[in-house]
Amino acid sequence: MTYTLVLLRHGESEWNAKNLFTGWVDVPLSEKGRAEAVRGGEFLKEAGVLPEKLFTSMLRRAIMTANLALDAADRHWIPVERHWRLNERHYGALQGKNKKEIRDEYGEEQFMQWRRSYDVPPPPIEAGSEFSQDADPRYAGEPIPATECLKDVLERLLPYWESRIVPEIKTGKTVMIAAHGNSLRAIVKHLDDISDDDIAGVNIPTGIPLVYELDEKTLKPVKKGGTYLDPEAEAKIAAVANQGK
Amino acid sequence: MTYTLVLLRHGESEWNAKNLFTGWVDVPLSEKGRAEAVRGGEFLKEAGVLPEKLFTSMLRRAIMTANLALDAADRHWIPVERHWRLNERHYGALQGKNKKEIRDEYGEEQFMQWRRSYDVPPPPIEAGSEFSQDADPRYAGEPIPATECLKDVLERLLPYWESRIVPEIKTGKTVMIAAHGNSLRAIVKHLDDISDDDIAGVNIPTGIPLVYELDEKTLKPVKKGGTYLDPEAEAKIAAVANQGK
Repeated sequence: MTYTLVLLRHGESEWNAKNLFTGWVDVPLSEKGRAEAVRGGEFLKEAGVLPEKLFTSMLRRAIMTANLALDAADRHWIPVERHWRLNERHYGALQGKNKKEIRDEYGEEQFMQWRRSYDVPPPPIEAGSEFSQDADPRYAGEPIPATECLKDVLERLLPYWESRIVPEIKTGKTVMIAAHGNSLRAIVKHLDDISDDDIAGVNIPTGIPLVYELDEKTLKPVKKGGTYLDPEAEAKIAAVANQGK
Repeated sequence: MTYTLVLLRHGESEWNAKNLFTGWVDVPLSEKGRAEAVRGGEFLKEAGVLPEKLFTSMLRRAIMTANLALDAADRHWIPVERHWRLNERHYGALQGKNKKEIRDEYGEEQFMQWRRSYDVPPPPIEAGSEFSQDADPRYAGEPIPATECLKDVLERLLPYWESRIVPEIKTGKTVMIAAHGNSLRAIVKHLDDISDDDIAGVNIPTGIPLVYELDEKTLKPVKKGGTYLDPEAEAKIAAVANQGK
């Protein structure tokens, strides 16, 4: 017997479309992103992969993606839990900045290190500044970060994975996680035992459900890398890799 | 000190627009209904009434209304619970039928009795028929009805009200319930101690948050009938009363 886990990265947001670093800034999906979410739900329905429990981040681009996808799959009524530990990587002082301008200002090497290194975070965001989340009521009393590298994301995500998500998976329910490029890369790194170096080359396309069958004893993937519910997924992975170029 | 409870009736559905009895048939919001939901969320935001916990039925017209309203109010991230005990009244064999045709066939008196009497349900729906919910996975193992009068709705709703909603209200959180004309009338009857006869004259407009301040000891409304977050609400109540005419 295996357990089924579905990972769904949100569709295009208004800031993806504008090429801005987003992180924890709570921007809405673009019209294209909403269409991607609906198509993702249709993939689920066509494949008969029907989520029974949903986890989301606290950010509307992931929440709206899940809402639209589950409605399209006739699963809008399933129970849901949300947590900031599934949020996108906090981009620190880069939040709200244009990716091209940052690359021009700091150079390709520094730009790629901030974007893709496993353990070098950008400079922290200034408390109380425009794109900081200090005063956001949804995080009141929570130990939220001021910047993060991917390593930080995995470290803050794992306690939630172990305490809330794993127990739901072990009930045998089909669990779906609707989240972000980097929080999902952290989960994939953990599941597939990807090295700190190799994770830089792993990209997850938007709006395409990624299905893992997990061994019931080890909770490790039966097939490394899982299976995308879309035959064109490989081309979309390449498109993500070219982001910001 | 008082507790705050917000009731939100879903916006127009595709079957409201077609004048069909809907009940537990899971039809989507119309475009007008989606706009009503967003406007409802703007009323919440403008009034500073910010839900901290959401309850919904298992039906997409209430779920989508809550999703759209909470997104508009920047509260899309609050925790949510869903239950069939908040569903619309089950309309039995009338589900899927045109209201005007039923009135023409059975006469005004029978039509109004089915629509407005407190304790006379329509004939039960036939098991396995087109608009029955017997095989719907969201109700698997649940003691769901085959028809209901408003009295039945109140009786199946109260155990959930007492066991799940009242404890959340008593934490001091602003609780919002996104549901349906008749499940919300049942709650209003219970809160305002409205008689079995008088509840027939109570109508709740769509998409307008109805806010109750509840006494912390008795959990009874400080102001009977609560307060609509829309100065034009009275005119909309009259419009609901004319439905089906």
